[in-house]
Amino acid sequence: MNFNADDSRYMARAIQLARRGWFTTRTNPRVGCLLVKDNIVIGQGWHEKAGLPHAEINAIFDAHQQNHEVEGATAYVTLEPCSHHGKTPPCAEALVQAGVRKVICSMLDPNPKVSGRGVSILEKANIEVQSGLMESEARALNSGFIKRMTTGLPRVVAKTAVSLDGRTAMASGESQWITGPEARKQVQTLRAEAGAILTGSGTVLSDNPAMNVRDSRYLQNQHFVQPLRVVIDSGQRVNPTAKILNLDGDCWLVNSRRSTNDFPGNVRQKHVNTVKDRIDLKALLTELGKEGINDVLVEAGGELLGGFLSSGLVDELVVFMAPKLMGSDARAMAELPLVKMSEAMNLELRDVRQVGQDLKLTYRVD
Amino acid sequence: MNFNADDSRYMARAIQLARRGWFTTRTNPRVGCLLVKDNIVIGQGWHEKAGLPHAEINAIFDAHQQNHEVEGATAYVTLEPCSHHGKTPPCAEALVQAGVRKVICSMLDPNPKVSGRGVSILEKANIEVQSGLMESEARALNSGFIKRMTTGLPRVVAKTAVSLDGRTAMASGESQWITGPEARKQVQTLRAEAGAILTGSGTVLSDNPAMNVRDSRYLQNQHFVQPLRVVIDSGQRVNPTAKILNLDGDCWLVNSRRSTNDFPGNVRQKHVNTVKDRIDLKALLTELGKEGINDVLVEAGGELLGGFLSSGLVDELVVFMAPKLMGSDARAMAELPLVKMSEAMNLELRDVRQVGQDLKLTYRVD
Repeated sequence: MNFNADDSRYMARAIQLARRGWFTTRTNPRVGCLLVKDNIVIGQGWHEKAGLPHAEINAIFDAHQQNHEVEGATAYVTLEPCSHHGKTPPCAEALVQAGVRKVICSMLDPNPKVSGRGVSILEKANIEVQSGLMESEARALNSGFIKRMTTGLPRVVAKTAVSLDGRTAMASGESQWITGPEARKQVQTLRAEAGAILTGSGTVLSDNPAMNVRDSRYLQNQHFVQPLRVVIDSGQRVNPTAKILNLDGDCWLVNSRRSTNDFPGNVRQKHVNTVKDRIDLKALLTELGKEGINDVLVEAGGELLGGFLSSGLVDELVVFMAPKLMGSDARAMAELPLVKMSEAMNLELRDVRQVGQDLKLTYRVD
Repeated sequence: MNFNADDSRYMARAIQLARRGWFTTRTNPRVGCLLVKDNIVIGQGWHEKAGLPHAEINAIFDAHQQNHEVEGATAYVTLEPCSHHGKTPPCAEALVQAGVRKVICSMLDPNPKVSGRGVSILEKANIEVQSGLMESEARALNSGFIKRMTTGLPRVVAKTAVSLDGRTAMASGESQWITGPEARKQVQTLRAEAGAILTGSGTVLSDNPAMNVRDSRYLQNQHFVQPLRVVIDSGQRVNPTAKILNLDGDCWLVNSRRSTNDFPGNVRQKHVNTVKDRIDLKALLTELGKEGINDVLVEAGGELLGGFLSSGLVDELVVFMAPKLMGSDARAMAELPLVKMSEAMNLELRDVRQVGQDLKLTYRVD
């Protein structure tokens, strides 16, 4: 396909629009749409929240609001227009009805069951369709959604806070605070962009964390919904009064058999098989995928983090590293019983930045 | 003092000149000198190596070589001109004899016994003297020398190579290679700028390292001398055939009593008192300071590094961090038996850079 500089400029704008839904579209993808006619932007839209109109519909509405005639326009969409009747009518049909002349999309639908169908609807209506423009940027909008659509599993980001010598707590469990307030503020962002926050009973018992989003930057968005909180509690050690179970929003308590405790009403006991007395983490992620969770943030101690890492279930590891030494008796960042150098897990450094006095290191895990 | 923009420009040049001696002036300080007359640079010099002329003498010689008349010139010197007859005559007197009109120096001599004497010689000869221009930059040229002159102890940089989870070796001792070739190349620079490389018998026994400078960038400099190699061997476990003892350059084998082994001729047994069966590290550093060592690079395993850190003897910690996880059974970066968060050692992050696939993190240790 040949795209010109104007096409790239408009698609870059559509990607910017898609980002406006960064914290609110789940379980749907982030999508932006720009309508251009005679080199003038006549409408722009983005998807805000599941159940509300898709980006294309919002863009058409925006054009009409400004008394623009959409007929003959070119639509720039960051994702193939949908072909299915879900909570809203198919966007491909809406574009046909609006009379657009041409549609340029960044990427096809990652769902193998529907990929290409939106393009078919458009082409049958004699609309010219091009795809692949700025595809890698468009894919970066929806890495969790794409992973879920192609594998059934959510994307997993594991976050940890460690000292320079790789320790997450003193031997006693004492760990507050390793990193500074700026790093903790960034954790709020990681939480706000996840569909679920996952932790283990050990962390709940030692820190009694809330694991919710408290930063007003996100709470003030009318479309924002607290991520699902997921607590792995195979030993049934978590008390019904734990803070994480007693906050707004949904919560899963994951164990292999029903607890007889009386938990708050928003807490759902979720039964997942165990393997060697440990919850089958892949089975749990599969359940989360079925629930429509695109992105899971794991905030756990060394044992559970080690379990996720050694099972090969982590996509990205975010390490907040404090400028301190906690010593050789302190707890390990990840329980990984490796023996030889050849067994060491190799990561790929993706990003380094200073956050207050701490470092934020982002690694891709293969 | 009032300095103008020209003064700063000339002093910045003098500091650049001083840097040319970065790897070769020890045990002397790095010093640069610029002679300026009628706004023209008439001579420049820097100190290259102990025993060779000082910066001021080289600058005067440079001016004469170009048939410039030094009389009436202003000298910009990064350090107060010396007042003592050492291997060379005093520079202050040389400047008087050359007839300079004015001397601007960045800092006074850090040696309390001679500080201010050079200025006195100049002022008695009716030469105008100003000091303090770009002092912090000038101090950065000679942080090790300044520390030794003011405390008797060399500046200690501790270097370690760790995984993201803070491990320096597998439990078996296997550790080659944690970091990549680019990081190892940077270690050559750290070694080349040190007066002594210090390690322990554990590292010698497990890795049989050379701990010398092999990078041709430094070896091709005719004035370069291998740093002193210092091996702490309180248990007298190091074999006379160890590589570190059998290379060009001086070597100290540090123990509390004489070994009866027959060591190579360049190896000097150095006896330092022990405290609880461990070598008194401060006493050892005092010995190194007496030897004229300005900068010591500690390249040691977790035990010795922990000893240096917990004794408060480290000025700077340089951590090469590989993008890998070596696991929770692997060896700790530094043996520090801390119990409470309040005991954690707080560092100050000074520099972060990517070196190949690894990170180079530099911390100031208080």
